[in-house]
Amino acid sequence: MKSANGINLTMLCDFYELTMGNGYWVSGMKDRITYFDVFFRDRPDNGGFAIAAGLEQIVDYIQNLHFAQEDIEYLRGRGIFDESFLEWLKDFRFHGDIWAVPEGTPVFPNEPVITVRAPAIEAQLLETYMLLEFNHQSLIATKANRICRAAEGRTVLEFGSRRAQGITAAVTGARAAFIGGCAGTACTVSDQVYGVPAAGTMAHSWVQMFGSEYEAFEAYCKAYPTNAVLLVDTFDTLRSGVPNAIRAFNNILKPLGIRKCGIRLDSGDMAYLTKKAREMLDEAGWTECTITVSNSLDERLIRDLIRQGAKIDSFGVGERLITSRSTPVFGGVYKLCAVENEDGSLTPKIKISENVGKITNPGYKKVYRLYDGKTGKAEADYICLHDEVVDDSKPLTICDPQARWKRKTLKNFRAKELQVPIFRNGELVYDLPTLPEIKQFCKDQLNTLWPELFRFDYPHLYYVDLSEKLMALKDSMLESAGRQREEK
Amino acid sequence: MKSANGINLTMLCDFYELTMGNGYWVSGMKDRITYFDVFFRDRPDNGGFAIAAGLEQIVDYIQNLHFAQEDIEYLRGRGIFDESFLEWLKDFRFHGDIWAVPEGTPVFPNEPVITVRAPAIEAQLLETYMLLEFNHQSLIATKANRICRAAEGRTVLEFGSRRAQGITAAVTGARAAFIGGCAGTACTVSDQVYGVPAAGTMAHSWVQMFGSEYEAFEAYCKAYPTNAVLLVDTFDTLRSGVPNAIRAFNNILKPLGIRKCGIRLDSGDMAYLTKKAREMLDEAGWTECTITVSNSLDERLIRDLIRQGAKIDSFGVGERLITSRSTPVFGGVYKLCAVENEDGSLTPKIKISENVGKITNPGYKKVYRLYDGKTGKAEADYICLHDEVVDDSKPLTICDPQARWKRKTLKNFRAKELQVPIFRNGELVYDLPTLPEIKQFCKDQLNTLWPELFRFDYPHLYYVDLSEKLMALKDSMLESAGRQREEK
Repeated sequence: MKSANGINLTMLCDFYELTMGNGYWVSGMKDRITYFDVFFRDRPDNGGFAIAAGLEQIVDYIQNLHFAQEDIEYLRGRGIFDESFLEWLKDFRFHGDIWAVPEGTPVFPNEPVITVRAPAIEAQLLETYMLLEFNHQSLIATKANRICRAAEGRTVLEFGSRRAQGITAAVTGARAAFIGGCAGTACTVSDQVYGVPAAGTMAHSWVQMFGSEYEAFEAYCKAYPTNAVLLVDTFDTLRSGVPNAIRAFNNILKPLGIRKCGIRLDSGDMAYLTKKAREMLDEAGWTECTITVSNSLDERLIRDLIRQGAKIDSFGVGERLITSRSTPVFGGVYKLCAVENEDGSLTPKIKISENVGKITNPGYKKVYRLYDGKTGKAEADYICLHDEVVDDSKPLTICDPQARWKRKTLKNFRAKELQVPIFRNGELVYDLPTLPEIKQFCKDQLNTLWPELFRFDYPHLYYVDLSEKLMALKDSMLESAGRQREEK
Repeated sequence: MKSANGINLTMLCDFYELTMGNGYWVSGMKDRITYFDVFFRDRPDNGGFAIAAGLEQIVDYIQNLHFAQEDIEYLRGRGIFDESFLEWLKDFRFHGDIWAVPEGTPVFPNEPVITVRAPAIEAQLLETYMLLEFNHQSLIATKANRICRAAEGRTVLEFGSRRAQGITAAVTGARAAFIGGCAGTACTVSDQVYGVPAAGTMAHSWVQMFGSEYEAFEAYCKAYPTNAVLLVDTFDTLRSGVPNAIRAFNNILKPLGIRKCGIRLDSGDMAYLTKKAREMLDEAGWTECTITVSNSLDERLIRDLIRQGAKIDSFGVGERLITSRSTPVFGGVYKLCAVENEDGSLTPKIKISENVGKITNPGYKKVYRLYDGKTGKAEADYICLHDEVVDDSKPLTICDPQARWKRKTLKNFRAKELQVPIFRNGELVYDLPTLPEIKQFCKDQLNTLWPELFRFDYPHLYYVDLSEKLMALKDSMLESAGRQREEK
């Protein structure tokens, strides 16, 4: 009986990465330096942007890359790998360079969020885990941010562990949700490991365990007088739960001089019930008692509840956040964009597809974010080749690669490179920020986006433009491919 | 920098399980014996059934339940737990009983799939992880089975790691997909840990790394002559990929006398392209060359492709399987159904809800599956109280709890208890089957279901009936709750 908890993540690779690795080895191409980009094509929920997350776990993974003896044995047992390749794997580690956008950065389709420069075998091996972590955490951070935006400043807590798709879906999911804006989680270990504040008080079973609802509430108030959040919907919210809660608050908390307390509702009509409950609590003098609701919430229901005047201080959001139920796949990909020749020159690579949207941007690239000099708002992202430099003291003309007649000349602007160096020759050269720093960074970065990007439906489409040089390179490669195609 | 890989799963609990645990402790209720049921309410994808999975990992978790010193320290740091409770946690382990349906069993809404009998604190602590594992693996096994059914006997491989929601979503997801019918996975570590056969050959990057597509194919055939599956859509499937593959097969494999080989397509119209590719391969004499396709497949697209005569031997299914994209949440719940009194008698518990479908079945129960004596097909499941015995030598009248006028008397039938004992007084009393045994068991159990249950849309709704005694208990508890409600 074996557990996926505590496995060697090096082996969490698609098998083809190993067959290709061995193939590069036997074909004499193992030291060929390659460039790969991580990028995505579709915005989750068709929203205005995504939030990049997962870098800290990717760094951890890369620092720990190694094949243990048992891994080598497993591979040997497959009977297809060259013995010298297996020998070489024993000392395998990552020697390459990695650039990435910091966690919490709003990102857009088709721009490189992570770029890897490494010998072919090494770069190839990173593919699965790097995508998995970036895809998963970016998905959840993005979804959490939508939900938090709907809550308009009210507290949102992540409550979904039990419906998460596996252990790490719960644990790093809570981390990503915190980056995206959640105030905390129900998941204890996410607090212990990552410092995402964990909270929670009682389930229905607590209430059912006692002779009566009142006894259950009284016992809880006695055990936790300073943190008594009582679940009031086990029998009947307004006829039983709220009156019993008020009685317990009066009998236990009042004599102690405690005003801070709360109730939670997990079923029924949240707009109607919270308004009524608020009245009852206020009439009884418990104006500081907070109301938390949970039960199949998402950004749309939260927005509707607020619009209907529901009296809610805090939302506990479960399955629809932790699985990003309406859009459970974040489609980041890992594509070869260049190989380095022996003389150090680069040969750009392109992936052509029947589907025009799937054609990649060739070459070793970098991305600038261009901010308006007056408003400070981000106007566009600008992808160029690595040796191009944007001088923001001079005007820059950008153009939409999907609609090239749409041009715009920026004058008063500030250009900032989005990616920062993470690894250099296999060594970590990046100071990892703390989780609260990432959360704050995310908030600050979101403040540079136009409000039009925050609409849930049909948001403004942010511009991600290609430099003229990059566009010319791409055009010429497509042109040449087209010629070859015609000749066949 | 910390990793969720290798955490103490005991701490993967909702924080309220700990506050309740401490609350039971300080209220003198820690040894109160409780009964909890795991069950679910909605069939994924509105299909005919779900497939239970995840038990092996739950067993592993329960056997390893413990609080390490650092866990105790973390909890102490929260400042709300009684010191004597924290002391007691040091020697915490599970002492209770667990019954569960074996992995691979088709299961239906509202029937207990796992039942826990344990002291309150212990039973409460299991909630999150048990649900997480059961929900996740059952979700993926159920989805995989739908996809495999669509493939009508053709091979289905799980290719989704990179889009999985975290590490274990990929690794145990591949395990669950195998139980549900997949032949293998791309995920190497799932093979190493669980023995799910891992397969894979090349990505587009392999093809791009070489001077030409043909050179890439030739190098691959040389490196892996007995397992050459060539990816043919990097440039142009029919004009470039397939002709180059045939040329490489002719030049490298033919002289070696090898007939077994394959091509894979990852884009374009799979019906058109595979038919054309099949013709080209057959004309060139490569009739044994298999055709594998991947790219956003699910059960509906696979069924359509087959109906359109696509020539496909094998499907690689990624994100829509590993996230169960169309239905990414499996809503298993964990509900208190009884508490044991000091004299050993049981007090049944019920959770009443505004939503009638959310009212629980009270009491310590068991479930029979009733098979027709002639056909061997499962006719209904029958939930009764634990002390009831179904004697299948006598007629049994069953009735639909949602429509009580619908009654049926079974005469020639065989009754089999669905749950088996897993833990007894904290000791494992169950021989865990191997993964291939689970897969076979699942297949055999599915063969006992009527084909009407396998429709993707509007399948027959299988009967899950309550015994008269259980129905009477439930009615009386609801009646009594109704009276109390009126009095308020």
